[in-house]
Amino acid sequence: MEFQIEKKNFLKSLSILQSIADKHSSIIALSNILIESEKNFVRLITTDLETTIISSVPCNIKEDGKICISARKIYEIVRELPEAEISIQGIENHWAKITCKNAIFNLSGIDPNEFPTLPPYSEKDLIEIKDINLREMIEKVIFTASTEESRYNLNGIFLENVSLEDMNVVRMVATDGHRLGLIDRESQELLDIKSGAIIPKRGLNEVKKIIGEYPDELKISIGENNFIVKANSYIIIIRLIDGEFPDYKQVIPKENDKIIKLNNRDFSSCLRRVSTISADRVEGVKFTIKKGAIELYSSNQDLGNAMEEFPAMYDGTEMNIGFNGRYIIDALSAIDEDEFLLELKDETSAAIIRPAEMKNLLYVIMPMRV
Amino acid sequence: MEFQIEKKNFLKSLSILQSIADKHSSIIALSNILIESEKNFVRLITTDLETTIISSVPCNIKEDGKICISARKIYEIVRELPEAEISIQGIENHWAKITCKNAIFNLSGIDPNEFPTLPPYSEKDLIEIKDINLREMIEKVIFTASTEESRYNLNGIFLENVSLEDMNVVRMVATDGHRLGLIDRESQELLDIKSGAIIPKRGLNEVKKIIGEYPDELKISIGENNFIVKANSYIIIIRLIDGEFPDYKQVIPKENDKIIKLNNRDFSSCLRRVSTISADRVEGVKFTIKKGAIELYSSNQDLGNAMEEFPAMYDGTEMNIGFNGRYIIDALSAIDEDEFLLELKDETSAAIIRPAEMKNLLYVIMPMRV
Repeated sequence: MEFQIEKKNFLKSLSILQSIADKHSSIIALSNILIESEKNFVRLITTDLETTIISSVPCNIKEDGKICISARKIYEIVRELPEAEISIQGIENHWAKITCKNAIFNLSGIDPNEFPTLPPYSEKDLIEIKDINLREMIEKVIFTASTEESRYNLNGIFLENVSLEDMNVVRMVATDGHRLGLIDRESQELLDIKSGAIIPKRGLNEVKKIIGEYPDELKISIGENNFIVKANSYIIIIRLIDGEFPDYKQVIPKENDKIIKLNNRDFSSCLRRVSTISADRVEGVKFTIKKGAIELYSSNQDLGNAMEEFPAMYDGTEMNIGFNGRYIIDALSAIDEDEFLLELKDETSAAIIRPAEMKNLLYVIMPMRV
Repeated sequence: MEFQIEKKNFLKSLSILQSIADKHSSIIALSNILIESEKNFVRLITTDLETTIISSVPCNIKEDGKICISARKIYEIVRELPEAEISIQGIENHWAKITCKNAIFNLSGIDPNEFPTLPPYSEKDLIEIKDINLREMIEKVIFTASTEESRYNLNGIFLENVSLEDMNVVRMVATDGHRLGLIDRESQELLDIKSGAIIPKRGLNEVKKIIGEYPDELKISIGENNFIVKANSYIIIIRLIDGEFPDYKQVIPKENDKIIKLNNRDFSSCLRRVSTISADRVEGVKFTIKKGAIELYSSNQDLGNAMEEFPAMYDGTEMNIGFNGRYIIDALSAIDEDEFLLELKDETSAAIIRPAEMKNLLYVIMPMRV
């Protein structure tokens, strides 16, 4: 194969794709990038077998073909090249010759047939989603997903269609067993998912990055096995997690009648202060809800203790409840509104945290003994 | 003890001092900060036994005394406090009580007498150095010092006074055995060092940071055992390395008669490109100096090879020589001038790299077999 390509576009695609290539994989193909010619562009492909990213970059094809070379090395080389036309040529033994002005690189490669077969997808299954902000939805719940490998069915975001008061709603839910995040967005378009799909976290992080740069003309599709996103000239194919997502509706408390409205920034500062003392471990922060105030208390056998009273409109019966401060701080950071609601029931029941006005986002935080 | 202090100044000092405190030391005192009252300020002290930093912060002393508490925790707490007056009080069992608005922290501490004794120093030994830019001098050579712990006598910068053509010169030299950096600065003030002093790298990195923020009114002193710098309200005391610095003058080649003037930025880019292929290992870059050009070549058994010809004014006999590309890139990054000189003798002799105009900075790079 042989083609000529502008540095700028090529580098941009390589920088996005090389993040998926696994530098340490024992399967060489997974640390490589497959470059194949199409009519007036090259398709660049990397995969970690779970997430596959395909990027189409316009170029001048002189001879059709494929090459498969180290994703990191081609990225590092192109990064250092001058802003000029780069010429790439497949040579004998699957090597590639890269030339740009006075520089000549000969890079070893592997047989392109060793590169994994692409998951099947068809561009015509992709539907345009204009009305939901996919990136924001992912950001609001992804941090509540589990990172424990053994809980593989919680290592992603659960996506489903819900009918709420005759509206079509796209819902994302994630949980690590200690906390849960849920966001709803009204959508004209009904996604074709029967019982919902679990999309792995890692792939969604890539989707988030790419959508960040190309927010327009987003198309998605959910098949039997894959979640597919097309943004600009990128296609991301993520293999769905084959597992059961827990019945999250059971987890969301319905009888939390102690509702306290608080200022997000001030309360978050206060909680961060009190949490400094227990930050190294998960020792929990004790909340004492009393007339006119929430008292936060944290202690650590080796270090000492911290206490701060935060004024709050509350006139019910006094109660004590403990939380992992980090979970609440995370939830508050993801809430954009100035005010949020802390909804409690009793000392052993989960709390709900949600923006004061926006009703389509909520976090459930399990209590802990302190 | 008891004092009231403004958050801003206190936090600034704590952030600088806590970098020296060793979080993982088995000696608790070394992860702690000693706070002792003076007339209208507190002195904050941390040490890793090699480098000691003392900072004086104005405050309102209500009761004299000392406390000794975790450097990192007090820093993390103060960072989260509101911009307001902070009150700190020594309480029973060496604990400290920190209050600020509604927040109360009780922090465990240790007996201040367990904190290491300060190295002796006297402010009157400090002399003002106006004419040399100490920070810049450190920056230009510190990266050439060795990081191998076993070569403790090369783990710092060698500082000495030299008489050059009837001028007093302050000289800094560092080497890791493969490369050497040397910088001279004319100085009115003759430092009182007989045979030179080796100042450890780690302490000088702290000096560099502090001078960066407070470049004025710099005073230094070199005693039998310590190098002392005073910058603004900070005093840094660094224990000298007790060892012999090699006779570096022997290492600086005097007969390098092949002198090539090159553009720093362009040559550096070219070398970085060719080096990408060998960046993971130290495989060396082969320089072929020939009529009108330097040809750079690098290869890596697993990856391939790279070659680029860089135009150069050279008309002598052709020669081949290998270098660790990283060492040359480092030296070129430290040279501010647009043009530099590459001075060579033969294939087995060290090269000199120096700015084309400024004669008081040079790097010696040992060749390697390629």
